[in-house]
Amino acid sequence: MQPLEVKVGGEQPYTVTVGAGLLARVRVPQRHVALIHPADLPPAFVETVQAALSPTVTVSVPPRDGCKTLAVYADVLSQLAAANLPRDGAVVGLGGGAATDLAGFVAASYLRGVAFYTLPTTLLGMVDAAVGGKTGVNLPEGKNLVGAFWPPQAVWCDTDTLTTLPSEIFREGAAEAYKHGLIADPSLLPRVLSPDFRPGDPGLEATLADAIRVKAEVVTRDPTEQGERAHLNFGHTLAHALEAHTHHAIPHGEAVGYGMHYAALLSRALGGADLTAHTRAFLRWQRPTPLPDLTFDDLWPYMARDKKADADGVRFVLLHDLGRPYLGRVPGAVLRREFAAWQTDLTLVR
Amino acid sequence: MQPLEVKVGGEQPYTVTVGAGLLARVRVPQRHVALIHPADLPPAFVETVQAALSPTVTVSVPPRDGCKTLAVYADVLSQLAAANLPRDGAVVGLGGGAATDLAGFVAASYLRGVAFYTLPTTLLGMVDAAVGGKTGVNLPEGKNLVGAFWPPQAVWCDTDTLTTLPSEIFREGAAEAYKHGLIADPSLLPRVLSPDFRPGDPGLEATLADAIRVKAEVVTRDPTEQGERAHLNFGHTLAHALEAHTHHAIPHGEAVGYGMHYAALLSRALGGADLTAHTRAFLRWQRPTPLPDLTFDDLWPYMARDKKADADGVRFVLLHDLGRPYLGRVPGAVLRREFAAWQTDLTLVR
Repeated sequence: MQPLEVKVGGEQPYTVTVGAGLLARVRVPQRHVALIHPADLPPAFVETVQAALSPTVTVSVPPRDGCKTLAVYADVLSQLAAANLPRDGAVVGLGGGAATDLAGFVAASYLRGVAFYTLPTTLLGMVDAAVGGKTGVNLPEGKNLVGAFWPPQAVWCDTDTLTTLPSEIFREGAAEAYKHGLIADPSLLPRVLSPDFRPGDPGLEATLADAIRVKAEVVTRDPTEQGERAHLNFGHTLAHALEAHTHHAIPHGEAVGYGMHYAALLSRALGGADLTAHTRAFLRWQRPTPLPDLTFDDLWPYMARDKKADADGVRFVLLHDLGRPYLGRVPGAVLRREFAAWQTDLTLVR
Repeated sequence: MQPLEVKVGGEQPYTVTVGAGLLARVRVPQRHVALIHPADLPPAFVETVQAALSPTVTVSVPPRDGCKTLAVYADVLSQLAAANLPRDGAVVGLGGGAATDLAGFVAASYLRGVAFYTLPTTLLGMVDAAVGGKTGVNLPEGKNLVGAFWPPQAVWCDTDTLTTLPSEIFREGAAEAYKHGLIADPSLLPRVLSPDFRPGDPGLEATLADAIRVKAEVVTRDPTEQGERAHLNFGHTLAHALEAHTHHAIPHGEAVGYGMHYAALLSRALGGADLTAHTRAFLRWQRPTPLPDLTFDDLWPYMARDKKADADGVRFVLLHDLGRPYLGRVPGAVLRREFAAWQTDLTLVR
């Protein structure tokens, strides 16, 4: 099967290629390449890309968010400098969203910016992190507080890499694809929940490409999050609160699954269509880690910060209907009432 | 006297204002400001800017290049995050070129980029660092290896701040102004060497503004150093070698003074006009720190790296004549012969 292509526009347009066996077929015009990958990536992935690109230097970084620190960033930069990676070289990020976020910020700032390519190997990385040019690392004070907008020159999503993912990690990543269905392309909703949407199934690629296309179109129109791009945060306000309160015991995609259902309840409460059957169905399909005992007051401080809150309520991405997102303000009393409804629903979906 | 203005063009045009008493008159549209300054800056400068801008947070960083490390960068970012500086806030860099380079990279990357303003307080900072958008810090492997192109939204050069500079620091900084005379505006050459060119003299401002204008015009045409901007490196190949070999015992502006004379000798050797009387006169005026005993072979490794060297020689910025710079390749034998001439000249200018 031919790989599928999704175009991302903007000042520096690029193509996201989706297909099987891409790691072995990666080519870049730059002669000098730094390959950055998480230490726990299957060695076969790294070796395949090394055979394809003959990198000048290969840098292994700590798994998951352990790589998104300024200490790791400094270490990677030093390894590139020690290897004399030149200004006309390239950085290639191979791995999940954390590794590609780090690699992108390295590319954005090494010698004030070199070419960047990504090879995401997780569903979350493919649907969310790889497209849109947001790169960065965390600070002790919070996540993603430092970074750059630095779009890749190309993204290759090799669907073969997904077959080695534990199934709960795959289901976790499906949250962002489902979100793209809710905010822009309702055809994705049944496709994500269908039995075809699994690693190794030939039907996966088209669904994946369509989910990526939603983000590609949004970031083409709003590359630096001046407006519409905020719609991609549907479900993320509660998700960030859950992640922060549990010290990231809840994985991001699962937090987004929980958060989308809360946002659907809020949308309905503010007069939008009732889309809660969709978000409930997703939670049933995703089977996320059960949440610890929580009260509204546990999460309120996280929702109330970020300048999104004032006397009129907290700013949320809401839905008038499928494919019709908007930025609304939700009064505190509604937030509290729908939180109770959300908690009741969670006991029912189990 | 009215302040003078120099326009810098490009995607985000901005104005450099040159005049006395500007620190007290600084205004920015952002409500939340982080002020970054070196710890050894006269407290009156910091207090004046604090009174003008009421910063949300003021961050003191180590003096000179001591602030251009990723450790200081991480610490400054954490202080901004702890102060909740918002996305629509601004970073203001007050101080010499090192502090404004650091502050600019902080502005470029905090929350993926916030507004940036500079208030340079050294001659070098005004003529060189404040214009052009190059920001960054050093790595253990070398200087300025990490950073971003992040132009300020405005630059204010308060000439009053120069009156507190030790005279050798002022003379050091004059090298870049003289260089702008050699590569683009020969009228600057006698003006830099004249008795008016000193802190507190009312004639200083116009010369300063004209020297800044040379860089402003070059970076307007070539903001990210794809071509012409390289001409600003006249004198810098030997300068960087001198700095590296002496572990920065030679200040940058003095190294550039030495390097301009070497580049003038090379230019003449390759058939250009004889401009060595100009560079010799500048060295006499600048009275730089005497160099330690040096051989060509001490400096050769530093000149030969950076991919600028190949079998045909080392790439240098040279001059056909005043105001006519070009990128040329100098054979190793010429480099060695003119190095001997340069060393002889140095004994004569003392």
